[in-house]
Amino acid sequence: METIKNYVEENRKRFLDELFDLIRIPSISAKVENEDDMYTTAAFIKDALIEAGADHAEVKETSGFPVVYGHKIVDEALPTVLVYGHYDVQPVEPLDLWESPPFEPEIRDGKIYARGADDDKGQLYMHVKAFELMNRTGSLNCNVKFMIEGEEEIGSPSLKEFCQKNKDLLKADVILISDTTMISQDIPSITVGLRGLSFLEVEVTGPNRDLHSGLYGGAVGNPANLLAKMIASLTDENNHITIPGFYDDVMEVSDGERAEMAKAPFSLDDYKQALDINEVVGEKGFATNERTGIRPSLDVNGIWSGYTGEGAKTVLPSKAHAKISMRLVPNQDSKKIDELFINHFRRIAPEGTKVEVKSLHGGQGYGTPVDFPAYRAASRAIEVSFGKQPIPVRSGGSIPIVSDFEEVLGIKSILMGFGLDSDAIHSPNENYPLFNFYKGIETIPLFYRFFAEEMK
Amino acid sequence: METIKNYVEENRKRFLDELFDLIRIPSISAKVENEDDMYTTAAFIKDALIEAGADHAEVKETSGFPVVYGHKIVDEALPTVLVYGHYDVQPVEPLDLWESPPFEPEIRDGKIYARGADDDKGQLYMHVKAFELMNRTGSLNCNVKFMIEGEEEIGSPSLKEFCQKNKDLLKADVILISDTTMISQDIPSITVGLRGLSFLEVEVTGPNRDLHSGLYGGAVGNPANLLAKMIASLTDENNHITIPGFYDDVMEVSDGERAEMAKAPFSLDDYKQALDINEVVGEKGFATNERTGIRPSLDVNGIWSGYTGEGAKTVLPSKAHAKISMRLVPNQDSKKIDELFINHFRRIAPEGTKVEVKSLHGGQGYGTPVDFPAYRAASRAIEVSFGKQPIPVRSGGSIPIVSDFEEVLGIKSILMGFGLDSDAIHSPNENYPLFNFYKGIETIPLFYRFFAEEMK
Repeated sequence: METIKNYVEENRKRFLDELFDLIRIPSISAKVENEDDMYTTAAFIKDALIEAGADHAEVKETSGFPVVYGHKIVDEALPTVLVYGHYDVQPVEPLDLWESPPFEPEIRDGKIYARGADDDKGQLYMHVKAFELMNRTGSLNCNVKFMIEGEEEIGSPSLKEFCQKNKDLLKADVILISDTTMISQDIPSITVGLRGLSFLEVEVTGPNRDLHSGLYGGAVGNPANLLAKMIASLTDENNHITIPGFYDDVMEVSDGERAEMAKAPFSLDDYKQALDINEVVGEKGFATNERTGIRPSLDVNGIWSGYTGEGAKTVLPSKAHAKISMRLVPNQDSKKIDELFINHFRRIAPEGTKVEVKSLHGGQGYGTPVDFPAYRAASRAIEVSFGKQPIPVRSGGSIPIVSDFEEVLGIKSILMGFGLDSDAIHSPNENYPLFNFYKGIETIPLFYRFFAEEMK
Repeated sequence: METIKNYVEENRKRFLDELFDLIRIPSISAKVENEDDMYTTAAFIKDALIEAGADHAEVKETSGFPVVYGHKIVDEALPTVLVYGHYDVQPVEPLDLWESPPFEPEIRDGKIYARGADDDKGQLYMHVKAFELMNRTGSLNCNVKFMIEGEEEIGSPSLKEFCQKNKDLLKADVILISDTTMISQDIPSITVGLRGLSFLEVEVTGPNRDLHSGLYGGAVGNPANLLAKMIASLTDENNHITIPGFYDDVMEVSDGERAEMAKAPFSLDDYKQALDINEVVGEKGFATNERTGIRPSLDVNGIWSGYTGEGAKTVLPSKAHAKISMRLVPNQDSKKIDELFINHFRRIAPEGTKVEVKSLHGGQGYGTPVDFPAYRAASRAIEVSFGKQPIPVRSGGSIPIVSDFEEVLGIKSILMGFGLDSDAIHSPNENYPLFNFYKGIETIPLFYRFFAEEMK
């Protein structure tokens, strides 16, 4: 532990400078205009792996953005850890809410502020630097492989095929991922459940052109009003989702497990205060952590129609659009939910409208066992570095590819994330505390050490 | 009539060239970036009035964009006609739906395509050219005044004060306005009723920042979902508006008058086909022309929240916005309706949200009598030029300033509009048939002739 701490201490500034260089490349996978940046970022990661001590690293083409693969094979007899991460980031809109430019990282109050500071450049780079540390200090006692993709924020459309084509190359005993949060710096935790996702886009068309709302208002179905009615009808007064069959595959969690969950430290007052809301809103009969942990949800992620500029324009719009996503619990099938949604949304299309729905992306939920070697290794590593045993928690987020890994590669994943809820990932002013960044780099080598022990 | 027709025939091309020059100036009153264009357009109109034979014309400052005033006083003993029009135009979004650039007028299939081609540059310029015609052919038998404003599309915020300050200057026997439609080129009509307007903007705030929809979805009120529910609740299953007190001042129209209205030529099939809709949608118990003519309505004119770019972004937005307007019938008070809406919308704000509502603009409805000299003059003029007696109709649109004219100046207005419903005003591909433009220039001098007769 002394060696680890010393190495991190001696290289603090360089680690951060390198991360800043990585963050400065605006690798937004959802935007066509950032295509070149995606390749620049992939090359950066490849070079960083070589520099950190990889025997081999390459930028491997896929049907979408490339995957960076690299490895160091110490000894075929040792256990192998496959590190997964992603070098792409979320879009940055609304830009006017950022206090500093999203791709010019800045330290304020001990935190790195930038898009990707946490998700996932900050967390991914901890692994690159921990790998360097183990190589330089001669403490690497596992084989290590890296698989760093560029399409996580758009649903990893090419990664499953990549895994199918590279099964041998990707052989490992566990997949190690840092792309989740812990409860706080004082209360470390490990994510043992992820929600699945169905993300769709809907288009409601009324008249074939924008109309004058005076001449036609009251006589012609307004797609914006009607889309509002359609969306409103998707949840009832108890915030229960009304799509027929939606809950069929939701597994009820036992009272015993719910009682366990209720023990996790949580202050509703702090939660409401942090978000500046007077009340939480969610499914009747469930607590806040249950609403995100063990229950599915439905959110409008975007809606737009008509005139949205300054001033007044008396238009009755021709079209109204929305992006709508549902978070799913592990036993729900994303493709089946897509189908249920599409059929339902078409069925409730009001007279005077045409409705189109397309699936944008999705993925299955995932549950990690707490009784396998990688969980025990992660738990021990965190206990040593944070001084407290981590709590297993179910997260509301989704990493759809995790269930694909198990299906295609037959390898389980361990979600050893170092982010915090307050990191504002996907939001303006995304940030990542320096404490978490350096603590992550210290914890990861311990994971390798304990994982090798657990696998003996 | 021969003289009129000959003069129009000889000057066809010049009239159109001048109108095109006027249209090319992008005088969008709602956009800050077009401020200079507003002044350029006002100067254009002033020069055109002088050129057409005005004794005097000037650009008069107001607290907003200027009003162009001009007159020709032939003889104090003659009746005076005050022509009202507006030189500002609507915004042009969505730009990608225009088949030709909005400010580069183009003739296709006998129609002028451009923003302002009808509303109101095309219709207003007919008056300038008819005025020129009467001056050049020595047939002007009324005094003429022009009051051409630049803020109609943003609710005429400065015009009422302008009228109050210039009561003497604006003295007249009637206000003549061409800013409405007729049923068709074969079925001329005169608008005798206008709806009022209440136009508001609402903002619903949930959490204090955009959140990750996985980590928070299901536990925190989503302002986009909740705004949809609020909007949905504003109308019931019969498309009746649910705001308490909303219908209190709506005058029921007698069965007799409704039977008269039902006689106006109207094909529901053609209407639906022209808009490409399978069904009309409106208040239960009323026909289509009643829904826009004698009943109020409520429309979302714009809605926006969250991520609206390409691809998927799993955001739970902090804010959701909508522009919502209500068309009112003559006896409803716009300010009272604003208040009812604001109070109601605040009252229905769901838990977990903050709601702000502001009034953007509004105006009273208006009814024109059919038994006064100007109506008879307009009816006779149209009968001569179109060969058919026009039908009096109630329009669904609003020209809020018309009721202010009566209140402040004590002058009634006659709405002799030459537009068509198919002109797509306020929409992409606004257009104005050349037939209507030239027919308007022919009809207006006849109005003056008959108005002078009627006033004797």
